Amino acid sequence: MASTKTHPAYELLYWPSIPGRGEFIRLAFEAVGVPYKDTANESEDGVKVILPLISPESTGSDGNPPVFAPPALRIPEAGKNGTDLLLYQTPAILSYLGDKLGLAGSDDAERSWVLSHTLTALDLNNEAHDTHHPIASALYYEDQKTEALRKSKDFREARIPKFLGFFERVLKSNDGEGKGKFLVGGQLSYADLTVWHVVSGLLYAFPKEMEARKSEFPVLLGTFFESVKEQEGIKGYLASERRKPFSMGVFRLYPELDRQ
Amino acid sequence: MASTKTHPAYELLYWPSIPGRGEFIRLAFEAVGVPYKDTANESEDGVKVILPLISPESTGSDGNPPVFAPPALRIPEAGKNGTDLLLYQTPAILSYLGDKLGLAGSDDAERSWVLSHTLTALDLNNEAHDTHHPIASALYYEDQKTEALRKSKDFREARIPKFLGFFERVLKSNDGEGKGKFLVGGQLSYADLTVWHVVSGLLYAFPKEMEARKSEFPVLLGTFFESVKEQEGIKGYLASERRKPFSMGVFRLYPELDRQ
Repeated sequence: MASTKTHPAYELLYWPSIPGRGEFIRLAFEAVGVPYKDTANESEDGVKVILPLISPESTGSDGNPPVFAPPALRIPEAGKNGTDLLLYQTPAILSYLGDKLGLAGSDDAERSWVLSHTLTALDLNNEAHDTHHPIASALYYEDQKTEALRKSKDFREARIPKFLGFFERVLKSNDGEGKGKFLVGGQLSYADLTVWHVVSGLLYAFPKEMEARKSEFPVLLGTFFESVKEQEGIKGYLASERRKPFSMGVFRLYPELDRQ
Repeated sequence: MASTKTHPAYELLYWPSIPGRGEFIRLAFEAVGVPYKDTANESEDGVKVILPLISPESTGSDGNPPVFAPPALRIPEAGKNGTDLLLYQTPAILSYLGDKLGLAGSDDAERSWVLSHTLTALDLNNEAHDTHHPIASALYYEDQKTEALRKSKDFREARIPKFLGFFERVLKSNDGEGKGKFLVGGQLSYADLTVWHVVSGLLYAFPKEMEARKSEFPVLLGTFFESVKEQEGIKGYLASERRKPFSMGVFRLYPELDRQ
């Protein structure tokens, strides 16, 4: 277990209240039982920690570059000359952490596939976000609803089956070692956690579409989905208050965007 | 130079004729002078090599998982038990190659930042694509032109300055070592090549918008942009027929989507 090793005091910097893109980082820590500080969720004025980080004036600090957008991860004394190291971009943080937490696969090939499948799941995550914000993130949903209805139709009819069919095939291709439970090799990776969370989000945001398609992806939505939920660290996390419910983040329940 | 080492016979698998997302991989090889086979561009029936790779029936081969979309990279005998290794997803390929080609930064912190900045540039690349395909990749531009006009306005007014302003600040934050020429540390990385190509694409697709904004980003569009073009391997590549012109790929010249 990674948790028996000594780990630095990792600090996740992300918006409070929603799972969002920070959730992929939380799941990695929770799966292996390594402690982390979820600053914006744990402090009263959480958002005040995030805003200066992404200020359009920032040129970074302590030898770290500026951050484009949260999530970011602060690792005490891991930077240049013993300063704090600050990382950003979900897949880059997962790639860095994956090695430290034992969630990155067992060799160079597996390491690359774990990252690849994660990137593919995050592409699906982005496309799910764009169903309700197809024109501009800065506009309200109501101001791009006509376009959202049209994009969601393509997302449900073409994109969901394309992505879920792909992950179903990845699980089948790794059946010998993974037994339908793991995408890469014979152990849990951050790709499993990422795909699992995106599927969870789709089940929340597109319940009718997913119900109608359930039988098309029996390994992904059956064996795999149930297995990740039962991982020791994940099971405890999902029962805790640290797991935030889906609400108004990437995955939103707008019934008009679901299958009618 | 990476080229003095022995390298495997890398094979890039991507659509023929356009730069597309394959270009980020080409630039990495070209910058360091490491040979690679660009299969679809070098063979008569190039596309026939790509199609089976992404067949919706594929469950992979030789221990490799299936590929979601090109580009993919084949590395002879680098896989399990001496089989060919097949990688996919642009950032995962660049992360793997970056270490082998000396384009990934000089330590763990730099390695992560190189990947982060690359991911950010590829997000911008995706958003540029979505300006002409905001509803569905499978539909013609003409069938989503109303939405494209609206999305492009936000892209030009909010997204271009947000992304270019960020990279301008990254260059400034690294001015001590990078001198405005490198985003991370004191040497060329695949982040430089990726950001450079995306900026090149924006100059092609949004010439009026970019001209109007030129003075806002003097380091990025000046020192940095010119410096990458003058890198030894890149200079020769840009003068060669291997560099495909922008046409109907990610970056397209639709004057109605540019600043009026």
